[in-house]
Amino acid sequence: MYRIGIDVGGTNIAMGLVDESYKIIEKKSIKTSENSSPKEMIRAIADGIHELMDSSDLIEAIGIGVPGTAELDTGKILYANNLGFEDVPFLTELKKTLGPELADKIFFENDANAAAIGEYITGGYDVPVFVMVTLGTGIGGGIIVNGKLLRGCNYAAAEFGHMSINFDGCDCNCGRKGCFEDYASAFALVEQAKEAMKDAKESLLWKNIENIDELDGEKFFEAVKAGDAVAAKVLDRYCDYLSEGLTNLINILQPNVIVLCGGITRAADMFLDKVKEKVARDVYSRASRINTEITLAKGISDSGDVGIIGAALVDKM
Amino acid sequence: MYRIGIDVGGTNIAMGLVDESYKIIEKKSIKTSENSSPKEMIRAIADGIHELMDSSDLIEAIGIGVPGTAELDTGKILYANNLGFEDVPFLTELKKTLGPELADKIFFENDANAAAIGEYITGGYDVPVFVMVTLGTGIGGGIIVNGKLLRGCNYAAAEFGHMSINFDGCDCNCGRKGCFEDYASAFALVEQAKEAMKDAKESLLWKNIENIDELDGEKFFEAVKAGDAVAAKVLDRYCDYLSEGLTNLINILQPNVIVLCGGITRAADMFLDKVKEKVARDVYSRASRINTEITLAKGISDSGDVGIIGAALVDKM
Repeated sequence: MYRIGIDVGGTNIAMGLVDESYKIIEKKSIKTSENSSPKEMIRAIADGIHELMDSSDLIEAIGIGVPGTAELDTGKILYANNLGFEDVPFLTELKKTLGPELADKIFFENDANAAAIGEYITGGYDVPVFVMVTLGTGIGGGIIVNGKLLRGCNYAAAEFGHMSINFDGCDCNCGRKGCFEDYASAFALVEQAKEAMKDAKESLLWKNIENIDELDGEKFFEAVKAGDAVAAKVLDRYCDYLSEGLTNLINILQPNVIVLCGGITRAADMFLDKVKEKVARDVYSRASRINTEITLAKGISDSGDVGIIGAALVDKM
Repeated sequence: MYRIGIDVGGTNIAMGLVDESYKIIEKKSIKTSENSSPKEMIRAIADGIHELMDSSDLIEAIGIGVPGTAELDTGKILYANNLGFEDVPFLTELKKTLGPELADKIFFENDANAAAIGEYITGGYDVPVFVMVTLGTGIGGGIIVNGKLLRGCNYAAAEFGHMSINFDGCDCNCGRKGCFEDYASAFALVEQAKEAMKDAKESLLWKNIENIDELDGEKFFEAVKAGDAVAAKVLDRYCDYLSEGLTNLINILQPNVIVLCGGITRAADMFLDKVKEKVARDVYSRASRINTEITLAKGISDSGDVGIIGAALVDKM
């Protein structure tokens, strides 16, 4: 039997046929911008499902990860900023479009939750408390307790990015101040580097860059690797911020493991040890025999596959 | 059948015989200071248990709440600041003292976790995610997910007080900066009031007070009730702090309910609505149909009983 996983993003819908060993055996991609209304997107997804089913119709389940709040009991996407969706009966409409034969096999979930489910299952974790933290444009994540996703009373749990770590800090787009993601997302790191390089024309951060806006995560870590002092200082402060949030999550949940994921973790050799050190120094439970393991995603890669495989498995929790 | 609940505090050990409707039918109290070594304390608790069993020997379970980390798998109190205990084989030794007949019936748990269990069971909550927040000298709490206490990998979960909400803030005794309890514990509120009254000799906070250190929570809320502007301003800022931490917990866990407890909640009519309002404005999920209910402990009172009844029920989770 196979599964279909669908990862709905702001610019792209990635779909894949996933086998029983969690390998993607066929992929396809649809540009979101060309199918941007809920109706168009649902039509495009339904077509994509049928195309994948040309390769195999032995489909056990079809799962969709959406960048917003997936209300499981109503089939609605309550809010998805990147899609411009509000209160859209997404799953309900998709089920109608696909017809009764497939309707019972189709599920949806918040994309960060889907990634957590994917990593938990494919990574073979078997721990009472599992936390995944995704470091991207923002910070999201998922919490799995005793093998079950903790969705919260409204399917909106694990919004780690909107834990304030500085109540007098910078304005967050959520309306609060000093949220974790404003300091410790991959996006925030690049912004911090841009700020620092303004007054440091000699910094290697300027290498191959004409306009400051050309700086991205990759170029930033190249400068760190090349020994640039300005970049190193920015990264050290970033480690402080990331540690603050992770330490908070540990003091609250004491998970057996926190898995970090997101493109930025490809450069983890340059910061993970420092983060672990800071967390180990700061956690309230530092006298305990056992403490949270902080690690990188192992079950699934950081490519687009995480979204597809996670989505393909959402009905399992 | 009956249960015995034992609440071990820094100055006092409260013990009670609890019936099947969760009423305390007999109580006794032992001063901790007179039995301060682990050995003395264990002897005193064992004697107390035998005395309570004179009233009934139909004992189903004996539970102990301790102000520290109760390592269930080793029977050790890993660390209890208020007792001066570190790595003490507390439960193991108590079992030995009580003998094989009672050994299988005796359990222990962190006291805030015990209170959460007590409130959850006696309050008849039946929700997927339940959080209790205790506002006292510090801030502690408990998390119950799907009817099971979330203890974490090292029995130290739910240390809400040591979630930093201000990474550049004041020094916390845990070694970090800006922890929630340094702003929003009952103790912190009184400290904030003391700071404000220094420059406000006209404030009603000075009523019946000669030395500033005489101010306590009760006198503070009397001044608020009497319409004192200085006290009102302090309380408003305190509501901000409390809301910051609660909003963080909601964005992370989206519990169905957060129960506040601790002596300070006796004055909740003066601040709870304001806290609810601030949280409702700030939570990330404010567009959801359902949001976390913030409420006061209903199952158990704020008296010493919460500790005894909670402790009596710890084996139930």
